[in-house]
Amino acid sequence: MSVSISIKEYLKTVTAEVEEALRDSFPVELGVPATLRDAMMYSLEAGGKRLRPALLLSAAEAVHGSKPLRQAAMPVACAVEMIHTYSLIHDDLPAMDNDDFRRGKPTNHKVFGEAMAILAGDGLLTHAFYAVAQAAKLGVPAETVLAISSDLALLAGAPGMVGGQAADILGEQGITSLAELEYIHLRKTSDLMVFSVTAGARVGGASQTQLAAVGEFARKLGLAFQVQDDILDVTGDEAKLGKPVNSDVDQQKVTYPYLIGLEESAALVQRLTLEAKDALNRANLAASERLIDIADYLMRRDH
Amino acid sequence: MSVSISIKEYLKTVTAEVEEALRDSFPVELGVPATLRDAMMYSLEAGGKRLRPALLLSAAEAVHGSKPLRQAAMPVACAVEMIHTYSLIHDDLPAMDNDDFRRGKPTNHKVFGEAMAILAGDGLLTHAFYAVAQAAKLGVPAETVLAISSDLALLAGAPGMVGGQAADILGEQGITSLAELEYIHLRKTSDLMVFSVTAGARVGGASQTQLAAVGEFARKLGLAFQVQDDILDVTGDEAKLGKPVNSDVDQQKVTYPYLIGLEESAALVQRLTLEAKDALNRANLAASERLIDIADYLMRRDH
Repeated sequence: MSVSISIKEYLKTVTAEVEEALRDSFPVELGVPATLRDAMMYSLEAGGKRLRPALLLSAAEAVHGSKPLRQAAMPVACAVEMIHTYSLIHDDLPAMDNDDFRRGKPTNHKVFGEAMAILAGDGLLTHAFYAVAQAAKLGVPAETVLAISSDLALLAGAPGMVGGQAADILGEQGITSLAELEYIHLRKTSDLMVFSVTAGARVGGASQTQLAAVGEFARKLGLAFQVQDDILDVTGDEAKLGKPVNSDVDQQKVTYPYLIGLEESAALVQRLTLEAKDALNRANLAASERLIDIADYLMRRDH
Repeated sequence: MSVSISIKEYLKTVTAEVEEALRDSFPVELGVPATLRDAMMYSLEAGGKRLRPALLLSAAEAVHGSKPLRQAAMPVACAVEMIHTYSLIHDDLPAMDNDDFRRGKPTNHKVFGEAMAILAGDGLLTHAFYAVAQAAKLGVPAETVLAISSDLALLAGAPGMVGGQAADILGEQGITSLAELEYIHLRKTSDLMVFSVTAGARVGGASQTQLAAVGEFARKLGLAFQVQDDILDVTGDEAKLGKPVNSDVDQQKVTYPYLIGLEESAALVQRLTLEAKDALNRANLAASERLIDIADYLMRRDH
């Protein structure tokens, strides 16, 4: 399928650009102790889909309808990847999920020790807000940058992603309803995606209606992403996933397939993706193709 | 001494105002999971000198010369206390300093468990940037708020406080020179004080010269504070300190008294405080008395 190839190429280009920008996150003149810098860069450069930066840059272009915005949005795209990366480092800690491997590589604390992993997470989280502020030097109005910074604090913080992780830990094994599971995933997964498209749309000069529409898109997309993750944990290929299949079952995690079965989970992914795209269509965007392509790509992914 | 009483009264008033504002940090409508909120508030309300907020509010008034600024600066004062509190929660973790008590109360992870303590720290750290952004709603120009946010990310992050903590852990027991110890304390202690006075001064409308001068004041003050802490660990009263004396010796920590002796350490506190006040005098401030009172108060403190 040509659409599928083209979105893959787009994601490849964006990934390369984001990773280049990420490499410059901690220039020598900032004077970060070498081991701390190594620990932060180890996880920042560990790969991954760079999905959130891609959503952010695509949303900016969707609203604005042209490419030159990518430069101004890039510091914010790096910021969201720093937040995502820190959350993985802290989630993998022995006191949390106690994971030894991530994307086929030893987790941060396995390489640098627990203390340094905690600090690497703290450092990346804090530096994300420095990265956001940099957008003001690239022509984004100070009011807009401040709105982005405030959004990030809410959607990545205790009322958002951190709250989702807390609810997950508090509810472990005790989750009995879809509503509880959805609540956790909306916060753990959707909120940072909502931030990504909202921030991109803000850089692109979105109206309030457009902000709400892309936010709703990402909310549904995040849920679809999470359900698909749960499905792949059962049906996926270990080599492609970079982790053992059935790890959720082994860890007695309550998942969508566990609660509603594989078939209904697959139907849910389809429905949520459709609803996500519907939300976009109401946004009156200059160019929504990339965001729609990403939604379809995620629905069809095998890892 | 009337000056001494008056600064104590000033600090008491500021503490009461800051603590009132902190209590409203996570209003119900933010929807933070109750246990996470409890964990964050437990440490946020655990008392302490509220020194950084006091420095921040005093610096705002020092530059501006009048009181009404306190309201506009209050969200930023809360932000710095959130950062300070998160750093204590993470520092106390078993993987870091492994402390069971702080200010006479069980540490966060002893009450809420390690996972929740890590998340409470992450939540407070993230929310600090939300609090900073609130200042824009109270009349502080967006450009100024953004500069404050950027300063906070640098001075509290990997290039600042987090970097200092990393250097401390990396150097443990291996520190042999005053220069190394000073490097750690400049980052672990001074940087957040530098942020405090700089942010306050920014809210007060400071010039670049004034920003540099108050920053230098806080740099010296932070060092003096840390040396005094080291001295009190040897000579202090357990009941007043809220922790056992000689804990540094017991933990084989390298301190100023260990490196240069008690007498020379005391002289160093005096000299650094004098240099701090000298820096202020070069700032041409509208009213520097409060900041000078705080410096003197810290030099004379017994806990």
